[in-house]
Amino acid sequence: MQPGDRDALWRVLEARRDHRHFGTDPVDDAALGRVLDAFRVAPSVGLSQPWHVTVVRNATLRQAVHDNFAAVRVREQDRFGGERRALYASLKLEGIREAPVGLVVSFVPPVEVTLGTTSGPSALEYSVVSAVTLAWLAATAEGLGLGWVSLIEPGGLHAALGLAPHLRPLAYLCLGHPALELHEPLLQTVGWAARRPLALDWRD
Amino acid sequence: MQPGDRDALWRVLEARRDHRHFGTDPVDDAALGRVLDAFRVAPSVGLSQPWHVTVVRNATLRQAVHDNFAAVRVREQDRFGGERRALYASLKLEGIREAPVGLVVSFVPPVEVTLGTTSGPSALEYSVVSAVTLAWLAATAEGLGLGWVSLIEPGGLHAALGLAPHLRPLAYLCLGHPALELHEPLLQTVGWAARRPLALDWRD
Repeated sequence: MQPGDRDALWRVLEARRDHRHFGTDPVDDAALGRVLDAFRVAPSVGLSQPWHVTVVRNATLRQAVHDNFAAVRVREQDRFGGERRALYASLKLEGIREAPVGLVVSFVPPVEVTLGTTSGPSALEYSVVSAVTLAWLAATAEGLGLGWVSLIEPGGLHAALGLAPHLRPLAYLCLGHPALELHEPLLQTVGWAARRPLALDWRD
Repeated sequence: MQPGDRDALWRVLEARRDHRHFGTDPVDDAALGRVLDAFRVAPSVGLSQPWHVTVVRNATLRQAVHDNFAAVRVREQDRFGGERRALYASLKLEGIREAPVGLVVSFVPPVEVTLGTTSGPSALEYSVVSAVTLAWLAATAEGLGLGWVSLIEPGGLHAALGLAPHLRPLAYLCLGHPALELHEPLLQTVGWAARRPLALDWRD
């Protein structure tokens, strides 16, 4: 590392947002390559690297992913009532069709015992999440926007994309050029939720 | 962001390691504060921020955490056979007692419905993992070493530290000054596992 790298990291951390508004310009291949390269440097329990990425640029398939999302969204809306429900209905939650690239990040369950998983097997899925998080920062540093769409039913996603049987989709990421400049979480801007101070205690 | 921030991010990403060898020098309060500040900028599903951090500097409590780890390690060793078992027995897997700071990152299950969790409630725990991952980078950028010890039985950890009932320990992190310079994953250096190219396919 070099002097100034800490401040640079913090500029990237502060700039990272969950984007849902994208332009339709294509993503440069070299930039996409660097986003994917984040998986190379990601931590994983027992160095298991239990992940697989499917890059979805096909617009018909992205429409199918959006159909999946739309059905889940309807179900979720029913879980809220009153003013909250009306606000929910007004939110834009994803940019699946606009963003030129979708990334399906799948968990690949290892066939052998993995070091570090005896008391908590979820550490394997957590490794995939860490890798996604680093890819998110790599995208931010490219000036790209990334949005993690969690309202997707994984079985339907698996079928729509014809994924291999051993893959378990864990994250669907929209990647493209951001169409909105966001200086705080969008859910805070629209009044859905607010950032809170860190809940913290000490054992000295 | 500024020109050069992308390269700086990559230097931090390449420098991040899972550390198990620590000196016993204390961690500077300002540096610790910046590591914890990573939670402020972490993504979370529905802006739920479902996390809590307990900072453990007390040596007696860290010894208790180590006892928990040691018991799980014995169980895990039994899952390997032959040469693999002998290699496992030789590995240093944590620095709980040497590292002057332990961080227990707990998941705090929200009491209300969280936006974005209808098709995958695990997105809440995943948010905690993303935050831990950012804290890991923040520590790296401080020149500190961090190690995620996944071989800890969460119920015993909860009891030993007297955590509040609503907290579910998800990660135990060792934080301190690294005593070994690592240029690749330690598990690769010792021949336990090797990095693989990213498994990738395309839907164009």
